[in-house]
Amino acid sequence: MSVKQYIETNKERFLGELFSLIRIPSISAKSEHKPDMIACAQKWTELLLAAGADKAVVMPTQGNPVVYGEKLISPDAPTVLVYAHYDVMPAEPLDLWKSDPFEPEIRDGRIWARGADDDKGQSMIQVKGFEIALREGLLGCNVKFIFEGEEEIGSPSLESFCEANKELLKADVILVSDTSMVGKETPSLTTGLRGLAYWEIEVTGPNRDLHSGHFGGAVANPINMLCKLMADITDADGRITIPHFYDDVEDVSAVEREMIAQIPFDEAAYKKAIGVEELFGEKGWATLERNSCRPSFDICGIWGGYTGEGSKTVLPSKAYAKVSCRLVPHQDHHKISEMFEKYIASVAPACVKVKVTPMHGGQGYVCPIDLPAYKAAEEACTIAFGKKPLAVRRGGSIPIISTFEQVLGVKTVLMGFGLEQNAIHSPNESCELELFYKGIEAVAEFYRIYK
Amino acid sequence: MSVKQYIETNKERFLGELFSLIRIPSISAKSEHKPDMIACAQKWTELLLAAGADKAVVMPTQGNPVVYGEKLISPDAPTVLVYAHYDVMPAEPLDLWKSDPFEPEIRDGRIWARGADDDKGQSMIQVKGFEIALREGLLGCNVKFIFEGEEEIGSPSLESFCEANKELLKADVILVSDTSMVGKETPSLTTGLRGLAYWEIEVTGPNRDLHSGHFGGAVANPINMLCKLMADITDADGRITIPHFYDDVEDVSAVEREMIAQIPFDEAAYKKAIGVEELFGEKGWATLERNSCRPSFDICGIWGGYTGEGSKTVLPSKAYAKVSCRLVPHQDHHKISEMFEKYIASVAPACVKVKVTPMHGGQGYVCPIDLPAYKAAEEACTIAFGKKPLAVRRGGSIPIISTFEQVLGVKTVLMGFGLEQNAIHSPNESCELELFYKGIEAVAEFYRIYK
Repeated sequence: MSVKQYIETNKERFLGELFSLIRIPSISAKSEHKPDMIACAQKWTELLLAAGADKAVVMPTQGNPVVYGEKLISPDAPTVLVYAHYDVMPAEPLDLWKSDPFEPEIRDGRIWARGADDDKGQSMIQVKGFEIALREGLLGCNVKFIFEGEEEIGSPSLESFCEANKELLKADVILVSDTSMVGKETPSLTTGLRGLAYWEIEVTGPNRDLHSGHFGGAVANPINMLCKLMADITDADGRITIPHFYDDVEDVSAVEREMIAQIPFDEAAYKKAIGVEELFGEKGWATLERNSCRPSFDICGIWGGYTGEGSKTVLPSKAYAKVSCRLVPHQDHHKISEMFEKYIASVAPACVKVKVTPMHGGQGYVCPIDLPAYKAAEEACTIAFGKKPLAVRRGGSIPIISTFEQVLGVKTVLMGFGLEQNAIHSPNESCELELFYKGIEAVAEFYRIYK
Repeated sequence: MSVKQYIETNKERFLGELFSLIRIPSISAKSEHKPDMIACAQKWTELLLAAGADKAVVMPTQGNPVVYGEKLISPDAPTVLVYAHYDVMPAEPLDLWKSDPFEPEIRDGRIWARGADDDKGQSMIQVKGFEIALREGLLGCNVKFIFEGEEEIGSPSLESFCEANKELLKADVILVSDTSMVGKETPSLTTGLRGLAYWEIEVTGPNRDLHSGHFGGAVANPINMLCKLMADITDADGRITIPHFYDDVEDVSAVEREMIAQIPFDEAAYKKAIGVEELFGEKGWATLERNSCRPSFDICGIWGGYTGEGSKTVLPSKAYAKVSCRLVPHQDHHKISEMFEKYIASVAPACVKVKVTPMHGGQGYVCPIDLPAYKAAEEACTIAFGKKPLAVRRGGSIPIISTFEQVLGVKTVLMGFGLEQNAIHSPNESCELELFYKGIEAVAEFYRIYK
């Protein structure tokens, strides 16, 4: 039967398989979920074997295990390595969810759950596309699967896993569904990603919480000082002030800026969707440049002092922040991380102690659009979506993509089916059912075309 | 028997009565403790009657009830109104306590518990001093007690209670034990207090938490913006930058600054006690001026974004801070509160929404040192501590003191027995047993002298 018919016949089963994955709260950032990580990896081996893989195993790493699976049809055929991740972001703040984040619900033609898109939904798209191509005799290449459980915490164990398993992971191209498209009516493939550096900052003032009446004005308040340190990292023009921060930033050519300007973008709708009156970003750059080709600095979390109900006067002992920079191609996250640590050390006032802990990082990435696998993905999406996908850069980071390039020497095609409104990493993450099935169709077509 | 003998004979009972109060977690800032507030007020009526009051009742207010008690010996004798509070600060962070904050423990000659000093310990000193003077036939004045349950949240109901009960509360002077002394070897009475203004700030960026990769750099981050707003409130010289903030600040005369300079102060020991390498405060003023005669700005709490384990990249929707200014005589907290709101509104950037909620406030206070009750307190302390107490200004705020002056037309004598190392408002609050008993002696002597 046709790819479309196969999907129509099996759509309920596909959803059931996805739901069985979602119900396992595989939150890599929280150590209490270790057993869920194992359970989720184990579940994937079952699903891969059921989809037609000849082999599917859970392989240990220094951290959460990796799932490896394969279907090898011929030594002469090219090999695709499918990378995905089975871990998800924490679901907090839980009170903003309209339904249980780990009990998927179908409402308004969408699947609502943590991981509905990122990356359980998208990895299921990959596996079901593979199943169809295999079962219908369309598969023209060997397929290997590597699903990790630490993507949301920066893939700390995957590089050494790749180093140790170069032969096993040997492939001609890597295929990843973990990115989003410009819009439902504007399919796109991602050709660039930002890098990332992430730090935790601890500011210590007095050795205990003090009475702000008895000490206020005479002893430095660590929250006041943390705010000053954070405020000084960006200037009024939205530029990062750390010396030499922009030294290695890739020049964006006039041609490229022209292409970006052609991406359909309705600023009023964008602002309305996220509920802001005005946008803010680096002076001299458009919104779609600011969030893809330019670095950024975000305080992801901050806490200190009394945060409960009512009003407690206190001069606290400690203040903390979790901060990150999105980086762009040519900015090395190791170099930036060192630069950041040195900068903070140089500006931290002597009245408090400031500790910077680098958490994780990753390099940016660029994919050439004349790569055979890219061409195949382009053709496959054109069939599934009825429109040639745009080649666009995205602002997110998948640090492992550049690691694959360095360690395995292989380029990656980013064939993702998410949408910005899917609210990944946020409460009420979701995925439109129609796009879930179109994605499966596109992947099945990819396996037919790429040989 | 002598005051000292009475204390020696009854010391275990005094402690038991204090512990029965401490065991009731009367935390006014948290609504779930409402039943504890009632229980604590009830307990006080029993203790006041047992100490010899003719009457002790729980009286309702708009908020937590007030405990009123009295012992009237003669219409011709002067009347002292003893004010105290039975509510306590929240005990968080709980993990830093060496023993249960609400199960008092004696270690190293000290009582360890939330409220051991502020204000359960000190109010017990008042009541036991009264008991001794009464039982031993020394009492030369009428005594009224008013114990409120909302001091730690700014006494929102007490002003209207006083307005409604002016006749009942009529007195010649108010006596309060809720302040600290310069040191164990340097007894002191407090002659000045700072005022207070307190606000909660809510900064809203996007209508939901966003992926910092997809939006970072293009959409204002509310934590980044909150840090900038907070950082700008003080300058590098530790001065508050809000226009007109210092307009009404009381001039501190050269004579007064000379007196302050005579207070024993060991900066090295002060820094060591609180564990800081350097002090920080307003340029041009000494530490003991900065924390008593000069206003201050402290961020008491801050929170927003991801604050859990590990590293979550997010561009959050909201960020919050609880902030306060300590004010000095002549600064009106209503005027300052309006000024602060206007200032924030004028500098808040259009890319976020900023909401300022005034929480509570109070005026500063000055006590004349030729007041008869002040003189009596001075003599009583000289007997108990063997040294004439210094007259000093303190940096803390007891907003109700200036309200008493306005509503009841009565001055207050601040006869407090705390010490800075008692760590009020902090984990491991404590009170030295020796000072607890010396305080009781001083109060008993006060009642003998003041007639």
